[in-house]
Amino acid sequence: MTIAEDNLIERIRRKVPSAPGDSLLLAIGDDAAVLRAKTNRDWVITCDQFIEDVHFLANRYPAEVVGYKSLARATSDIAAMGASPEIFLLSLAIPQERTGKWLNEMIGGMARAARKFGLRLAGGDTSRTEKIAMSITVMGTVGHGDELLRRDGAGPGDAIFVSGVLGGAELGLRLILRGEDNHKKFRRLLVPQFYPRPALELGQRLARKRFASAAMDISDGVSIDLQRLCKASGVGARIYAERLPLVAVPPELRRLQFDALELGLHGGEDYGLLFTVPRRMISRLPQRFRAVGLTRIGEIVGGRGVKIVGTDGRESGLKAKGWDHFRLHPEGIPRLAYEARWVRRN
Amino acid sequence: MTIAEDNLIERIRRKVPSAPGDSLLLAIGDDAAVLRAKTNRDWVITCDQFIEDVHFLANRYPAEVVGYKSLARATSDIAAMGASPEIFLLSLAIPQERTGKWLNEMIGGMARAARKFGLRLAGGDTSRTEKIAMSITVMGTVGHGDELLRRDGAGPGDAIFVSGVLGGAELGLRLILRGEDNHKKFRRLLVPQFYPRPALELGQRLARKRFASAAMDISDGVSIDLQRLCKASGVGARIYAERLPLVAVPPELRRLQFDALELGLHGGEDYGLLFTVPRRMISRLPQRFRAVGLTRIGEIVGGRGVKIVGTDGRESGLKAKGWDHFRLHPEGIPRLAYEARWVRRN
Repeated sequence: MTIAEDNLIERIRRKVPSAPGDSLLLAIGDDAAVLRAKTNRDWVITCDQFIEDVHFLANRYPAEVVGYKSLARATSDIAAMGASPEIFLLSLAIPQERTGKWLNEMIGGMARAARKFGLRLAGGDTSRTEKIAMSITVMGTVGHGDELLRRDGAGPGDAIFVSGVLGGAELGLRLILRGEDNHKKFRRLLVPQFYPRPALELGQRLARKRFASAAMDISDGVSIDLQRLCKASGVGARIYAERLPLVAVPPELRRLQFDALELGLHGGEDYGLLFTVPRRMISRLPQRFRAVGLTRIGEIVGGRGVKIVGTDGRESGLKAKGWDHFRLHPEGIPRLAYEARWVRRN
Repeated sequence: MTIAEDNLIERIRRKVPSAPGDSLLLAIGDDAAVLRAKTNRDWVITCDQFIEDVHFLANRYPAEVVGYKSLARATSDIAAMGASPEIFLLSLAIPQERTGKWLNEMIGGMARAARKFGLRLAGGDTSRTEKIAMSITVMGTVGHGDELLRRDGAGPGDAIFVSGVLGGAELGLRLILRGEDNHKKFRRLLVPQFYPRPALELGQRLARKRFASAAMDISDGVSIDLQRLCKASGVGARIYAERLPLVAVPPELRRLQFDALELGLHGGEDYGLLFTVPRRMISRLPQRFRAVGLTRIGEIVGGRGVKIVGTDGRESGLKAKGWDHFRLHPEGIPRLAYEARWVRRN
């Protein structure tokens, strides 16, 4: 008996960590998986899509990157709660012609990410479609005694921090969209776009040490994500352009006229943490956590809205220009397909 | 500040049960939801896709049906474990033109299913695409003292049962594909295709009373699903054509030459339970559970493979012809699009 779909699942299962163990009591092979957290731990759960022409371009992103990044993105939400990753589920819709080499490489990248983040594949669903569409559900656990990293706890006077560099992933995307991604010397600039690192250890540290009054990951860009954090907390914010840890645009890219401030404010997918720290805790927060810088970019204020103080010292409202699936690409085509066309035209 | 994507999520959240409560500690609005099961209960988790042209045709399935059925399908896997539904997550990718009336109606159907099954929406992700693609993760809980309904416990001599009617959902699908779904008198025949009922109470009863040695839901058709159950249990099976609780094809459909046995064996989406019962328990099993019949269709045997005894008394191998995304529709187009074309041609 050959059942093609079952074979596909079996191929994925063999390559990705998926054996029962730890919190996974019953693994792939039944109608559902069975989970049991350690005593005094709660589950956190999130899901994230990764879709061809929306989140990536199939002919520009290596299959291995698609596998790695799809899982890293989803896992970033676990980091943003201060939780430890445990299991994931994969909904995978792919064209027939992707079921061979492409799928093997994709699974390879996913398996690497799963091992890196400590995740086991607990289930999934496969379909055949015209375009690649993935949806990944990730679950982690958090101790009852830990302070959960929520978005809604920021208060006036809290300092605003970001981890890592802003705009690196967006710079990589721009290079891809402009067809500059094949230059060997620019390849390292693609790393933040291809291989984001969820801030797992940092999130756990912030949760355990109760450093953060509010936190979230930077997935759609600081300008949109900070608005979300402020809205959830019922506060406003002021940030300073000169303090932003912006990506360094190499001099040889000057001809492309990238604006580091624009990339850093509105570019998404950096997957660092955006978090607020009450005044009394600021001095205890280290300046770096492992190799990642923690940068104070501004403060929470009363009222509503996010202001930015420019390098000229003038304050203005910060527009939320981060990625928003249902606002951009007015031509009615998926996001990246639109972006690629728009960038080539301008 | 208007953020279109956040508004979309907010619209869904308002219509679908999604308030924190029971096992849902932290609901929509943060990077992830937080879950805590009651003491001595484990979680079960599953995910299921529902994709335009693969699982439904957007111009033939009312939006309300898409919402209801997408959630019912996924919840059926929870029933098949003997668990109680708790929460779900929705990955939703839709075209811009579906964000108005269509989305409202779709959410309406989903909200109705959520209330019916006792589910709360705990999170999700939205994107804009050319075709509708949904992936739903559902979680339930099961008591430590209950017997989990697994696929791998069937032994030789166990009786094989199915709940409900076989082929009803497939008959509905065939009517849709042949364009017969607009006849008012056939409308009731579409109900099994449009509004499947996960066998939640039956699954829970089987689990608590320890009636079943193995169980799964019939999602892809008895012929393929029984093979899967046998493979997981390392056994074979013999079923009897004359015992199958086949859908009644109305006389006025004779011109369409539907074969009830074919529909019942290979048609998927009935979402009844397929389960095996050890000999000593058979007499204790009721003939009906609530309004749903429980029908003994055969027995588990040693060895491998599934045999069927025809109405003429002759035994033959049963081919697994249920739906398999990666085997059918050789023209490289999605399943239902292919089916619709194929049926019209033949």
